Amino acid sequence: MTPSFYCRAYRSLMKVVRIGVTLGDPAGVGPEVVAKSVALFPDDKIYLIGNKDNFLKILQILKMKNEIQGNWESIDVPGAPVEFGIKQKSAGEIALRSIEAGIRLAQDKEIDVLVTAPVNKETLIMAGSMYVDHETMLSSITHSEKVCTVFEVDSLRVMFMPPKHVPLKDAIAHVTEENVFTSISLAEMSLQLLGLRGRRKIAVAALNPHAGDGGLLGKEELEWIEPAIKKASSQGVEVSGPYPADSVFHRASTGEFDIVVSLYHDQGHIATKMIDFYKTVSLTLGLPFLRTSVDHGTGFDIAGKNIANPASMIEAIRLAKKYGVGYESNYLAISKGF
Amino acid sequence: MTPSFYCRAYRSLMKVVRIGVTLGDPAGVGPEVVAKSVALFPDDKIYLIGNKDNFLKILQILKMKNEIQGNWESIDVPGAPVEFGIKQKSAGEIALRSIEAGIRLAQDKEIDVLVTAPVNKETLIMAGSMYVDHETMLSSITHSEKVCTVFEVDSLRVMFMPPKHVPLKDAIAHVTEENVFTSISLAEMSLQLLGLRGRRKIAVAALNPHAGDGGLLGKEELEWIEPAIKKASSQGVEVSGPYPADSVFHRASTGEFDIVVSLYHDQGHIATKMIDFYKTVSLTLGLPFLRTSVDHGTGFDIAGKNIANPASMIEAIRLAKKYGVGYESNYLAISKGF
Repeated sequence: MTPSFYCRAYRSLMKVVRIGVTLGDPAGVGPEVVAKSVALFPDDKIYLIGNKDNFLKILQILKMKNEIQGNWESIDVPGAPVEFGIKQKSAGEIALRSIEAGIRLAQDKEIDVLVTAPVNKETLIMAGSMYVDHETMLSSITHSEKVCTVFEVDSLRVMFMPPKHVPLKDAIAHVTEENVFTSISLAEMSLQLLGLRGRRKIAVAALNPHAGDGGLLGKEELEWIEPAIKKASSQGVEVSGPYPADSVFHRASTGEFDIVVSLYHDQGHIATKMIDFYKTVSLTLGLPFLRTSVDHGTGFDIAGKNIANPASMIEAIRLAKKYGVGYESNYLAISKGF
Repeated sequence: MTPSFYCRAYRSLMKVVRIGVTLGDPAGVGPEVVAKSVALFPDDKIYLIGNKDNFLKILQILKMKNEIQGNWESIDVPGAPVEFGIKQKSAGEIALRSIEAGIRLAQDKEIDVLVTAPVNKETLIMAGSMYVDHETMLSSITHSEKVCTVFEVDSLRVMFMPPKHVPLKDAIAHVTEENVFTSISLAEMSLQLLGLRGRRKIAVAALNPHAGDGGLLGKEELEWIEPAIKKASSQGVEVSGPYPADSVFHRASTGEFDIVVSLYHDQGHIATKMIDFYKTVSLTLGLPFLRTSVDHGTGFDIAGKNIANPASMIEAIRLAKKYGVGYESNYLAISKGF
């Protein structure tokens, strides 16, 4: 049997991932970074969910109309014309309906994975949305209770203890045994959903300098974090820590751990952004389908100027392909325990 | 005039920096990382301050006795023989007396700059020291009141708002207008002491996610940090912020800022360690002489085994040379304002 036989056999076994990509707020950099990224995945089936006229305008600005014909299909979200770089109601409306359309396509099994371009809180509110971000909207509409955010960049994966978007003072108050234990469980779930069954080494970052230095530099490690790790460990979870936050992310990036539980927003954000400022991808895990996302905002100040960096969107699509194949079966397999 | 003329002229103009290097706790990795580093600076005058017998033992273990003969001179600190890898009183005594000797040499102008290898809090206490770290000891003996710690790695410089070694909760409580203003002044002083007169762009990192997002994710930015920046700015300091902590360190590393004020230990630590885990150097600024230091501990578990990584010590000596020449005159020039 020749190598080409294996090649053919492999292809027939490989499930094609159908990727839905929302264009985000059409007045922001979303359509541009999507256009620049989609061109790099000519062999994949990609559904672009957003306003088609606006997207064609971006293609003209980028002078790349013909290059990506063929590998994408437009799921048009009609709406009033939009001006680049301005916060406007019509843009919020298109952004909102694009997410709704993406969720519907995923629920109807028309797509396997949803990749999202950035939206803006203010324009979503202008459009009358009851949600101001993707995650709340996705969790609510799909009735998902155990949902978490994981960042991935190069070989580093970080899971954020919820709630992520609170003042630092409040994040500290949330460091309780119960919340840390729940976060470890969510990290374990994340690795299962991503299909990393043989690689489930979870590390928990410490809250205080030097991991509290035996209580001299803070008591949360002794009082809450260590007991939570012990409890999870006694239930068979491969988890350790708390490790000083200035070494655990480096250790994970060299392959020692498969995921790090970050106890507050900037802890994990600084670590991932210092590895590669542009390539970090946000994954929402625990929904019935995989959602990946850029980690940047709408960038209204640079929209429509052909200067937006598509690195994060390229990685978001790459990870959607990487993890999208097995996600549904992993979800069904572990959802019994939900 | 030939290039060699300029070469000679340059050398005659260049002040030779006399570098004092303490060997730290002789039972730890200090002597080993110093031995491995000193060999890389064959043209410099280096005074090794520590127990000579112990150092000769390490040279034998490293099989490098002859290689570094000539460029170093021993300032012997006598003491009882020490066993590698064990916390012991005699090691603490040698470590303590080595720092004292280093300070004396710097005060007597026998050396221009002091580089320190790691000491251990517990063995210093065993030895009856009233100080448990370098910085307190150096500040106290030299009667220096305005002293701060700056980390440097590659092109990133971070100044830590004191006190650095406190629980995260307490660090937040220290974020007041007065403390942030003082920190900005210390960052300004640091750049002056390092001779970076034309490059004094100071950035202040935010405390909360998204720099507080206009108060939604924390009020410290609006209440304390912004007023402190405005006050310093109105006094002619080139300072800006607060910037989201997950972007400011990246921006500084690309040259946009010359120093970042970090509001808590792990904020700046995670950033520098993710740039290069082994190369970060700690500088103590505000003493009458420059002190540089490795950023790692005594590593008792790997001491005497020829496996310690000397990268941080090599960088500490390199920065001592880089900044040591002009430090004293910069110190005298600005100490009028102290």
